[in-house]
This record gives sequence, structure tokens and C-alpha cells, in this order.
Amino acid sequence: MLAALSAGAQQRNNVVPSVTGAVEDFKPGITNQPGRQYPMVNSQGAVRTQLRAPQASSVQLDIGGVRYEMVKDENGVWTGTSRPQDVGFHYYQLNVDGVSLPDPGTISFFGAGRWGSGIEIPSADMDFWQVKNVPQGAVEEKYYWSKATESMRRCYVYLPAEYQNNPGKRYPVLYLQHGNAENEVGWSSQGHTAQILDNLIAEGKAVPFIVVMDYGQSQNIHLVPPYAPQQPAQPQQPRQGQPGARAAGPDAFQVVLLTDIIPMVEREYRVVADAQHRALAGLSMGGGQTRRITLANPTKFAYVGMFSGGVMSVEDIQAAAGFQQTNKVVFMSSGSKENPRVMEAAESLRKIGVNAVGYISEGTAHEWHTWRRSLFEFAQILFR
Amino acid sequence: MLAALSAGAQQRNNVVPSVTGAVEDFKPGITNQPGRQYPMVNSQGAVRTQLRAPQASSVQLDIGGVRYEMVKDENGVWTGTSRPQDVGFHYYQLNVDGVSLPDPGTISFFGAGRWGSGIEIPSADMDFWQVKNVPQGAVEEKYYWSKATESMRRCYVYLPAEYQNNPGKRYPVLYLQHGNAENEVGWSSQGHTAQILDNLIAEGKAVPFIVVMDYGQSQNIHLVPPYAPQQPAQPQQPRQGQPGARAAGPDAFQVVLLTDIIPMVEREYRVVADAQHRALAGLSMGGGQTRRITLANPTKFAYVGMFSGGVMSVEDIQAAAGFQQTNKVVFMSSGSKENPRVMEAAESLRKIGVNAVGYISEGTAHEWHTWRRSLFEFAQILFR
Repeated sequence: MLAALSAGAQQRNNVVPSVTGAVEDFKPGITNQPGRQYPMVNSQGAVRTQLRAPQASSVQLDIGGVRYEMVKDENGVWTGTSRPQDVGFHYYQLNVDGVSLPDPGTISFFGAGRWGSGIEIPSADMDFWQVKNVPQGAVEEKYYWSKATESMRRCYVYLPAEYQNNPGKRYPVLYLQHGNAENEVGWSSQGHTAQILDNLIAEGKAVPFIVVMDYGQSQNIHLVPPYAPQQPAQPQQPRQGQPGARAAGPDAFQVVLLTDIIPMVEREYRVVADAQHRALAGLSMGGGQTRRITLANPTKFAYVGMFSGGVMSVEDIQAAAGFQQTNKVVFMSSGSKENPRVMEAAESLRKIGVNAVGYISEGTAHEWHTWRRSLFEFAQILFR
Repeated sequence: MLAALSAGAQQRNNVVPSVTGAVEDFKPGITNQPGRQYPMVNSQGAVRTQLRAPQASSVQLDIGGVRYEMVKDENGVWTGTSRPQDVGFHYYQLNVDGVSLPDPGTISFFGAGRWGSGIEIPSADMDFWQVKNVPQGAVEEKYYWSKATESMRRCYVYLPAEYQNNPGKRYPVLYLQHGNAENEVGWSSQGHTAQILDNLIAEGKAVPFIVVMDYGQSQNIHLVPPYAPQQPAQPQQPRQGQPGARAAGPDAFQVVLLTDIIPMVEREYRVVADAQHRALAGLSMGGGQTRRITLANPTKFAYVGMFSGGVMSVEDIQAAAGFQQTNKVVFMSSGSKENPRVMEAAESLRKIGVNAVGYISEGTAHEWHTWRRSLFEFAQILFR
């Protein structure tokens, strides 16, 4: 097989043969399209897939940062098996003669900047995000006019099951953001937001609240004046007492969140429009945005969640006037396979009286199962 | 280029060279991912795309039933240009060394049984399905328990903008089905149901109503007893007077529609639960299902829509007791590039007093722009 290695593949270090000797109890992936047998997953978490490509000279299964050289049979069908993967959801792809493509057997997910394949490695705790026969909320696809971009934008809004039958009741809101190169679809697709909340609410473990999931990739958000950061007419020197490294302004997502998203939600849905009923959280890049936005707007959000998104320090909070008086919870989480400082960061914050909660997702890395579990934990302490 | 033709491609008749001499006013497709330049469309409706694949020996642009041989430059980037395409939405794909794959430049659509690429060829009338700054309804992703399949199923529900602010008002419902090898996502994605209705309602051209879009691919719907068709203990001979070709029972989608979908909608949404406020329509296979289900349940639906889905005959209606007394509209449509009998079929039905409407979508074939236009027309005569 090595002779068939493509030039593009050879440039990467992590090309290995397809794994042999895996436990032969493979079953179709639960993220497969209806009726598709491949990809498959075994009890060890290994992934096996197939692709018919009689004319290709190299087909690889590209998952978990490793490319496995698939093997061709006499019918031109290539088969490849990976090493065991972490439990939870992974983006992956195939590679045919140097070209990356989705595995046609799976449904389509947006991540890594493109629509592609995903595979779910079942975990012992996966029950918490399954679709169950409990009172069902709904996720709305909602368009709205954005003044800051002079365009229509799209968000997804989770409404708890009881929302439609309580026309007199108003609800708290969690604004929940995706990571880099993902989009507003992620949390309700691979994140299973609605199922996590429906199940928690049905068991009485979370109070009913609304979740708003929007698009936060700031470099793709084009602000118009006067919302765009001002371009100085000539290069500015930092004035005495001002930090020279100050950015030109808040990032575009912060502008849209405060100018458009929150006002739209508070106008069009039955929400309690104050800081004590408003939370901001996000994963990875979205956690970093959460940190910056809540510190820059210290009296706007009583609940803060950073999932694999860094930590908030004592100095951060002490520099943000009013943050501590407003805040009810600072939640910081990480997968155990990341390099988490979240537990010690939470400990430090508690010493100054912040209600900080650290959470480690056991056995997972910088991936969606870490973030589903983070939402599951965070949701139970929100708006209490 | 012909020497590079793959064996798989040679088995198809319609492989042609990439088109030369196209008008050079190509612009990025409106179905592209944010920030992607390719694929592009020119003013003639020709499609041009690119793929970097230095090691491939054949790359084709596969659109409109034709495979165009793309041409490789010195950097290993392949470029291909199609002939002009019909206005509207087309599924398409690339083919690398005999393997079909999505074009990584576009967002992902479900059709032809897989998630893949789509391209929109702008049409003079495309304004009617654009997202505009008018009162916005929302499309809900909704799970519900199905007794007939003993599983949770998913549908999409369009709620008009005024729904949330009129807790005392009840609405009529259109049940709207996709075509073969599509799914419940299609109508609100490539179909733009919400935009078509938001825009019509904002202009006062349609009354506000709810649209329910579910999954109708009957071979993938597994009924459980007693809803599954009875398997006879031994082969049955047709009895005298009974047609021997009688099917084992209604198709699985009909069972789910009547057992689960309609009862769920009438329980969980504020609807008027009678035939005069209930419509069934579908495209292609969904139009055929509409015909069979409304004829088999002649007093359940006052409005019937078949988009590129065949026609209903005088004999059909006369054999279905109560159909004509219940029915308010039979709407039958087709693209002008199909072989439509819809106008003459409507004329025949009008002669027996049915309020039948035929509609021809000019310049389109068996594709989504025909069906968007059909919904646009049908919506204006619904529930009046």
C-alpha cells in the first residue's frame, strides 16, 4: 500500500496502515443516513468505512488527526479501519487521490469550515442527549433584520415544551455560541441542545429557559457605519494612560449580539429582559467571546459559561466594574484530554467570592461530547 | 482530455468537454458557503467550478445529466464550465477518478438520497422566495412520538409571524411533502417555504396558515403492529369481485400521517381541526401520495395540491364518495419542460364542477423552482 501513497498524503506525517485485528462487532453508525451500513463503529470505538472507487490509486480514512490507508478489494471497494476513537462526536473525511471528501454514508454536519461527515462513538452516558418520549420543545429557524450589518441574519431558538401553552409566562434566555469554523446550526445538530434541555426539564433538573444560537464568526460579519469600528484618518499614537495594544473596537459578533440579537429576542419572544435572566456561553472560540463580551459588559449577563474556551481570572473580574455584583455563576469546563486549568481557575475565583464552577469532561478532548456534557451541567445551575 | 476519461465515465453517454466561449461575467453562487468564490454562475446560467486535485487523472462537473470534463492547470487546479442551465435550483456533484463528491464550495442539501451540492441559477422572478425585511414567521424542528412506528419522528413546522402574538387564534394547516429520495428538510431549505409564505402574507396575498413538512419515504418508515399491513398466513387468491392487484394496504406514510402527524399537530398547535382547514400537497412522489391519500380519505382534506406529481381524473374523483362535496380546490402543476397534462386534466375536472386549477411553470423542468412557484400559486388560493 505504501507504494500507492499520494504525494499529498506523503507530506503529512500521520499516515498509517488501516488497522487490523479490531474486535469484529461493528455496527452502522448512529449518524448514518437511513439505510446506510457504512461507516460502522465497534465496541472499542474503532471506525470502519468503505468507498467504491475502482480507479483511485489511494483512498484514506482521515479521522482524529490520522490518515488510515484504506485497502482495495477485487471489486474496487476500499475498506479502512481506524484505531479506537474517544467517545462522542468527531468530524472526519475521506481522501481520494489527494482530494478530501465527505463519506457519503453519513448525514452532513457543518464544522472545520465545510459541510462534511461526522461519526458518533457511543458513550456510556449518551442517554442524556437522546430524543426521548418526553414533552418536546422545538428549535425555530428564525430570520431577523440586523441594523449593524444591514442584512437579514439567521439564528436558531430553542423554546421549551411549555412555552406554547403558557402565553402569560416569560422565560430566561441563554445565548449559546459555536466554535471557530462552525456555525449557528451546530448546537442544535451535533450539540443536541433541544434534547439535552427537554430531558433535563422533563426530570425537573433544569428550569425551562430559551436558548438562542446565532452565527459568531466575526470575520464573516460585515458591520456597516456607524456600527463598524472607526478607521482613524491617520495612524493614532496611544495617548498617555491608554494601553497601546487596545483593539480598534469590540469584535463584530459582540456588536451584532448587543445591537440586534438580544433586542430582537426581547421583542419577539416572551423573555424576562434583565441581567438576572440572561446568560452567555460558548464553546472554544465562543467561550473566548463570552469572556470578552461579559467582561466588557459587566452588568448585562448574570450567568457566564466557557466550554473549552479558556478561563476568567481574578484580575479580569476585578477590572470589570459591576461584574461581581451582577454575576450569579461563572462556569468553566474542559475535556480531560485538553490541558485544563479550569478547576484551579474556579478555585481562585471562589476565593474572592465568585460562584465559580469548574467541570472536567472525562475521557474527551476538544470536541462536541465535551460541550454537550458542559451544557448538561451548566443548564442545571442556570436561573436558579 | 478524452484519453483521461475514466472507465466509469465512459460507461455514461453524456460526457462532454468543458464549455469554452461562455460570457465572462461569472459571479459566486448564492448557495455558496460564506467567503467561497466557486462555484460561479454567469448571466447565461452557465456554471463554472474549480477543484484542487493535483494527483487526480479525471475531474468532472456533473450537472443537468451531463458530465463536463474539467481541465487541469499547472498548479493542479481543475476548472470546468457547463452549458447554460435552467433557472432555479439544481443538485449537482463533482466526480474525481470515478468517485462522486460534493463541491466543497456550496452549502449542503439533501436530495437524490444523499447530502450534496446545490447551485441556484438566478431567475427573473426569484424575488418571491428571498428573505426580506417583512414580519418573519419561523420554521420549527419538532420531534414527536409515533405510535405507528414506535419511535420518535421529526417534522418541520412553519408558523406564520402573527402566530406567537395571537394566543386566541387558530390556524388552517397545509401538510406539504417532498419528493423521492428527499427528506423533511427540503421544503424549508431549497424550497424556501417560510420566505414564500412570509412574503405573500406580508403583501396580503395569502391568509396566514401553518405548514407541516414531514418525512414521506415509505420504504424507510417501519410500521409496527397493528399499523403494519397484515401479512396473510398463506397466499390469498383474489375473491370474486375483488381486484387481484389490490395492495396489501395503504403506504406507510399515509398510516403515519393519519395516525400520528395530524393528531400531533392538532394537539400541539392552535389549528382548526376540520377538513375545510386542512390541505395536503406534495411534489413529485409527494404529489402521487397526495392523490392516493386524498382519494382514499375523501372527506379529510378540502384542498389538494399535486406539484409535478401527476393528475387526478374525473374517474378518480367520482369513485371517491364525498370527495367532491368536501373539496374546495384541486391544484395540479408542472414545469413547462416536463410533459404536462395538468391543464387539460384541470379542464376535465372543471366540467364536472370541481374547482380545479392547472399551473405551468415556464422554462423549468422537474426541479425545485417549479415547486417553489407551485407553492407560491397554491398558497394564494388556500383557505379562502
